[in-house]
Amino acid sequence: MQRFINNPDEVVEDTVKGFVKAHPDLVRLSERNRRVIVSAFAPKTGKVGVVTGGGSGHEPAFIGYTGQNMLDAVAVGELFSSPTAKSFHDAMVEANGGAGVICLYGNYAGDNMNVKMATKLAAKDGIEVATVVANDDVCSAPLTEREKRRGVAGEIMMWKIGGAKAAEGASLEEVRVTAQRAIDNCRSIGVGLGPCTLPAVGHPNFQIEAGTMEVGIGHHGEPGIRVEPLKTAAEVARDMATIVLDDHALAEGTEVAVLVSGLGATPLNELYILNDTIEEEIARRGLKIHRTYVGNYFTSLEMVGATLTVMALDEELKSLLDKEARSPGLAQA
Amino acid sequence: MQRFINNPDEVVEDTVKGFVKAHPDLVRLSERNRRVIVSAFAPKTGKVGVVTGGGSGHEPAFIGYTGQNMLDAVAVGELFSSPTAKSFHDAMVEANGGAGVICLYGNYAGDNMNVKMATKLAAKDGIEVATVVANDDVCSAPLTEREKRRGVAGEIMMWKIGGAKAAEGASLEEVRVTAQRAIDNCRSIGVGLGPCTLPAVGHPNFQIEAGTMEVGIGHHGEPGIRVEPLKTAAEVARDMATIVLDDHALAEGTEVAVLVSGLGATPLNELYILNDTIEEEIARRGLKIHRTYVGNYFTSLEMVGATLTVMALDEELKSLLDKEARSPGLAQA
Repeated sequence: MQRFINNPDEVVEDTVKGFVKAHPDLVRLSERNRRVIVSAFAPKTGKVGVVTGGGSGHEPAFIGYTGQNMLDAVAVGELFSSPTAKSFHDAMVEANGGAGVICLYGNYAGDNMNVKMATKLAAKDGIEVATVVANDDVCSAPLTEREKRRGVAGEIMMWKIGGAKAAEGASLEEVRVTAQRAIDNCRSIGVGLGPCTLPAVGHPNFQIEAGTMEVGIGHHGEPGIRVEPLKTAAEVARDMATIVLDDHALAEGTEVAVLVSGLGATPLNELYILNDTIEEEIARRGLKIHRTYVGNYFTSLEMVGATLTVMALDEELKSLLDKEARSPGLAQA
Repeated sequence: MQRFINNPDEVVEDTVKGFVKAHPDLVRLSERNRRVIVSAFAPKTGKVGVVTGGGSGHEPAFIGYTGQNMLDAVAVGELFSSPTAKSFHDAMVEANGGAGVICLYGNYAGDNMNVKMATKLAAKDGIEVATVVANDDVCSAPLTEREKRRGVAGEIMMWKIGGAKAAEGASLEEVRVTAQRAIDNCRSIGVGLGPCTLPAVGHPNFQIEAGTMEVGIGHHGEPGIRVEPLKTAAEVARDMATIVLDDHALAEGTEVAVLVSGLGATPLNELYILNDTIEEEIARRGLKIHRTYVGNYFTSLEMVGATLTVMALDEELKSLLDKEARSPGLAQA
């Protein structure tokens, strides 16, 4: 493994330490729990606290979206593992400004279970917690079973929108409804060209043969809908856009936000190459692009590949998406 | 090659197309030259134009730092190749607001030659051009021959400072002096764990054996000062900090900015692991960290590895570094 690590069992500990050292103006480590990152601006009295949590190895997700007008606290799991119920609970406590806490997280078994337990613990503290579960990964289940779909990079949009809505002083129920609409309006797909290795395991958890690609792959190497010979970037981009947009079925003229994220080891210039055709395909369908993000926004260690997220916008979502925010993973002036 | 490309000879063309589509609020493609990116805010009458240029494959450098209060125009070279003199010249013309143009670029033979030619062409147009050449890579030549050193990620600091100074209405000579001080105050080092492949070549230009690392490697695989067994992240980080800080010899109490950049295929969490020890080492020497950047700021396709840049600050540099700026590669509210 050609990697910068110390003890393979302490990758998350070391990551978190280096992260809070890098961004003291935006985040701090919780004094209650070394697996909780708290915004330097939280808690804010009277504001709905915005929380998430997830496995590590997806940086800048999840911790990198902590900051101003974004997430207030994040529960940190081990690599590719859910945070504990205790960590979710501590994140809720840290984010609590007395107006309730919204937990915006992704649909994975461990996260579902631990968020549920944490919500009960928070209730005992007198903290009202509402939840929104992201289901934006179109290849993880058919549209008729959308509740089974996993949450992927659309979560960033949900956090941005939820964070902005909470910052505007909305109630817990208003934040919940808006964040739910944000993620309902998102569709994502991943394409994998190469696997990743958990340092403590030492070999890839799954294989992608040279010359092939896995369409619909999940963030932890969950199988996609097909393995096929690697195509040109334009063909891959068209396939990604087609799968996402066919599932979405948006009316002509709809405004959208586009997020093209690398999975870790794909050069940024290749993400731009994909974006060229993705935007062409979106425009061809008569959709209007309001804003595009291209970069390593939601990764999977050193996996080779990319994800596409398309989010349908309305006037409110657009204004919340554009609201000023500051976090290590996303800064918007 | 597990890569998202179309025609290997058109990687730069496709990258640039996808880039300008992604960021129409910040950049546009020059109508004079398809290898010149122009800020959406340029030219500005009476403001010094800020220009750079360099080979592609280092994204977000160089094009990604075009925007507001950053670069006004960027000449785009083929992968790992200097832009042509014509492209540098066209970038100067695009950035020209009548108050002169500063070209802030890295010390490579092709860039030196082509900037010189472009400067002469610009003079014929009546555009006064001043230049600052970055020499921040400490392992590329001894301190006594600093003028032979290459420019690497310190250039981002030079662009940020130069762009901010020009935005404040400074004269060409004032911008030149300040940008020169910015890069004089930078020291950088790279460590390579894995090579990269130019798509048109199809195999790596250089090798890094598994289990080893190359200390002092350049952005195109230029040999470093030693190849040695891969150490722990903490040991690597201490070595990087030691080499940079020993060369720098800063007085105790000096404030610094720290930039830890991935080379393309190193996961973000590992950059934070490096940062943990880097900041420890900087603090141990009695230096004060004003600001830290951790991310893929200056890459080399899918090279595995990282660079460290430390920049000594004074009050003016600090205020210019902190000035609001917007570009695809760096947004600061």
